[in-house]
Amino acid sequence: MTRKALIEQIRQKKSFLCIGLDTDISQIPAHLKDHEDPVFEFNRQIIEATSDLCVAYKPNLAFYEAEGVNGWQSLTKTMGVVPDNIFTIADAKRGDIGNTSTRYAKAFYEQMAFDSVTVAPYMGADSVLPFLVFDNKWVILLALTSNPGSSDFQRLQLHDDGDKLYQKVLKESRYWGTPENMMYVVGATQAEALSDIRTIVPDHFLLVPGVGAQGGSLKEVVKYGMTEDVGLLVNASRSIIYASHEKDFAEASRQAALKIQQEMSNYLQ
Amino acid sequence: MTRKALIEQIRQKKSFLCIGLDTDISQIPAHLKDHEDPVFEFNRQIIEATSDLCVAYKPNLAFYEAEGVNGWQSLTKTMGVVPDNIFTIADAKRGDIGNTSTRYAKAFYEQMAFDSVTVAPYMGADSVLPFLVFDNKWVILLALTSNPGSSDFQRLQLHDDGDKLYQKVLKESRYWGTPENMMYVVGATQAEALSDIRTIVPDHFLLVPGVGAQGGSLKEVVKYGMTEDVGLLVNASRSIIYASHEKDFAEASRQAALKIQQEMSNYLQ
Repeated sequence: MTRKALIEQIRQKKSFLCIGLDTDISQIPAHLKDHEDPVFEFNRQIIEATSDLCVAYKPNLAFYEAEGVNGWQSLTKTMGVVPDNIFTIADAKRGDIGNTSTRYAKAFYEQMAFDSVTVAPYMGADSVLPFLVFDNKWVILLALTSNPGSSDFQRLQLHDDGDKLYQKVLKESRYWGTPENMMYVVGATQAEALSDIRTIVPDHFLLVPGVGAQGGSLKEVVKYGMTEDVGLLVNASRSIIYASHEKDFAEASRQAALKIQQEMSNYLQ
Repeated sequence: MTRKALIEQIRQKKSFLCIGLDTDISQIPAHLKDHEDPVFEFNRQIIEATSDLCVAYKPNLAFYEAEGVNGWQSLTKTMGVVPDNIFTIADAKRGDIGNTSTRYAKAFYEQMAFDSVTVAPYMGADSVLPFLVFDNKWVILLALTSNPGSSDFQRLQLHDDGDKLYQKVLKESRYWGTPENMMYVVGATQAEALSDIRTIVPDHFLLVPGVGAQGGSLKEVVKYGMTEDVGLLVNASRSIIYASHEKDFAEASRQAALKIQQEMSNYLQ
């Protein structure tokens, strides 16, 4: 998907919501357990109930890999029912030497037709560049994550120019691609860092997890992170997909997504 | 597998060779292409030809993921034919927030019965710790990798104590687990850094890629990295598994592995 098409979707739906499909077979409603592929059926109903309210879906690969071959089948089938106009994110946090990164890129962009994949920066430029040579496909690079461990290394100050590591990651990587094919992961629990991040990457989209279950505030994220082109995809996972564990789970997920979309709609005016 | 069992294997086989199963369907011999599962058949023959010469196999997950569901089936079947006394490494370079890392751990340790998984440190302690709660299962944490991009961030000097980032990663993480359940990835192309790394982690095993196709020297790795308990797993992938692209590929892989094992045997005396 192009940046232009993504922005159009956001304007049209009045939403920059990304829904994380962290689908855990132990968490899905009992009445789906007899289905041939309960994970797919759960995802299918969530997507059907929410696809007019969000602009992106983000399956978390770990939840599918944990189910082995069956999990990959559930994921492949899920990708088949995501409407074409919705941006898809393989939340995989990959990154390896060049020829290996190329394989991961093919896995997600070609085998599974994802628009984007999340990538970890630790191995440097040549671990990320192979993801950037595919037309209209995106890298979403980890910059500052929403977990407590983000302090362990990402926030360490560097000797040479006083930047923190995550700032250096942003500065080094921002010209590896362009705002047309790169985004960054910035946790919502780090909203105060967003205005500083915007001085480094004023145009790039930011994928912001951590709103909802992890405690981040949408209002803060918008205040410090929104640009003229919106420039934000805000993700919620558990608070939407597990809004109910009963038969009404799909409708409950819609209500949870609607609540966020309505708040977003206000910010987009 | 326990550390004790691994060391016994090394002494018995006079080898600390790890063979990387980076099996690329486009690279395997033509006569296997008609096989029901060419990737599995290739791996099966490589394993049969080399399992007395190595102590570990390391499938590179990207190569299997690039083939989608079929790739996961090939990988699962491959794991089924690795002898029990051989250490297995899921070269996956994962790492995510806690509940997601737990899923990856289950995927590799339980679904696929790997002994270990490679993990990226960028997201910090809580992204790694969930991998360390499984009995006799190992984390192999990226420290200093063998690719050019290792200079981009891993070698940056930090402000507070003057350490480079990879040194800080070693110092912070060495007590997350123990030498009984953690190893580190240190590229062979960085052999001169090994003696310094040994001052920080004197007892941990190091997984050393980059010997062979990437140009690292086994002699240098041994000189700077070997401990009383050996403390090294040295990986070769392409130079062994693609030693020949013809019908003799398995025998050629054996010869390539034997050459390295014989050199290792000398260093172990």
